[in-house]
Amino acid sequence: VGKEATLIVFSDDFDRALASFVIANGAAASGKKVTMFFTFWGLSVVKRRKAPRVAKDFMGRMFGMMLPKNSGKLSLSKLNMGGMGAAMMKSRMKAKKIDQLEIMMESALKAGVRMTACQMSMDIMGVAREELMDGVEIGGVASYLDAASGANLNLFI
Amino acid sequence: VGKEATLIVFSDDFDRALASFVIANGAAASGKKVTMFFTFWGLSVVKRRKAPRVAKDFMGRMFGMMLPKNSGKLSLSKLNMGGMGAAMMKSRMKAKKIDQLEIMMESALKAGVRMTACQMSMDIMGVAREELMDGVEIGGVASYLDAASGANLNLFI
Amino acid sequence: VGKEATLIVFSDDFDRALASFVIANGAAASGKKVTMFFTFWGLSVVKRRKAPRVAKDFMGRMFGMMLPKNSGKLSLSKLNMGGMGAAMMKSRMKAKKIDQLEIMMESALKAGVRMTACQMSMDIMGVAREELMDGVEIGGVASYLDAASGANLNLFI
Repeated sequence: VGKEATLIVFSDDFDRALASFVIANGAAASGKKVTMFFTFWGLSVVKRRKAPRVAKDFMGRMFGMMLPKNSGKLSLSKLNMGGMGAAMMKSRMKAKKIDQLEIMMESALKAGVRMTACQMSMDIMGVAREELMDGVEIGGVASYLDAASGANLNLFI
Repeated sequence: VGKEATLIVFSDDFDRALASFVIANGAAASGKKVTMFFTFWGLSVVKRRKAPRVAKDFMGRMFGMMLPKNSGKLSLSKLNMGGMGAAMMKSRMKAKKIDQLEIMMESALKAGVRMTACQMSMDIMGVAREELMDGVEIGGVASYLDAASGANLNLFI
Repeated sequence: VGKEATLIVFSDDFDRALASFVIANGAAASGKKVTMFFTFWGLSVVKRRKAPRVAKDFMGRMFGMMLPKNSGKLSLSKLNMGGMGAAMMKSRMKAKKIDQLEIMMESALKAGVRMTACQMSMDIMGVAREELMDGVEIGGVASYLDAASGANLNLFI
């Protein structure tokens, strides 16, 4: 306890994804072992850019159509205004020399942050392993709890 | 510290309620003492199915009319589409042999998960003790903090 | 670990702000050292009532216009109904003799709760130091992690 951190990324909001990676990278930089657990809507954050062809049933196709395709397509939880809000936020980050979300995600992987996709959510949403970014593991609630039991910093975002 | 977990269930979203009970049951199964604290909109999750007649003032009736009657009436936080999204999610869970929310809630009580409703929220929302499911205690922020101070896994959902 | 608590206030919802201060004040009353970290939309919670004139660029003005001016202007996350929901909640709190949000915030400062505004969020949203309430510090993710590493109760609200 004290040297580890876990983050459950439940949301596919751009702003919450951003907060998740700012905290994850900060914690990794301060020497903590960090585990991120992507569940429910949060799965969209770790979908790969070039979506492979995957056979899906009807509901899987429905979810696939309605949810963001990857981290580049996320919306703000407020003031999204059809994507204008998220675009404003990104241009603002550029002006202020803050890394974009994709860069933060790469940095996280390089810094050894463990990224895990929730198996149960993948089943429910019909997301296949091939759709996930390289470097993302698959795990269940037991693997989350295992990581959390050694950590004092456990957030649900 | 290390053998206990607390979850604040603040939301009445179906998906967040589901996540709460997946974590609570997983933690209980791994030997942790788990306390769930239902507050604000989260109160609706622990309302009993057969609502008793309770005298309410005007605002209490308003909140009662506008909020979900019980855990069977929750909406998805996204893609709810007038209930179609939540229904899709449930049919999906059935197909994948994942327990439904009500079963998870029963399992939690059987596994000794402590379920507490927030007194202050009940006052504000005008929810009476008789409206809560059997097995649900009533407590305040002090009882939450008491549970949290012995736990390293404390989530706000 | 065990004597400290941190709360990330990410949201500008009235109900979530309320929950944050109920927990913060409860934790302070029980002898914990509490740090609150206001980030993203949560910055609006700690803006001062009498907004000073601040030179802003175009995007800063846009965010300033669209976001709540201060803690008195927050909306409910659900059932806000153009402000009627938040007003109902406040009148309800008054009837039940629960402190209003502003009183809770004053109590928090008096009780020694540390309130920190996130520097990166201020940069992105174009919020200036003069716009923040007295008693609010400015810090980055490192200062948050520093506080969190000594705490077992760390919530993201």
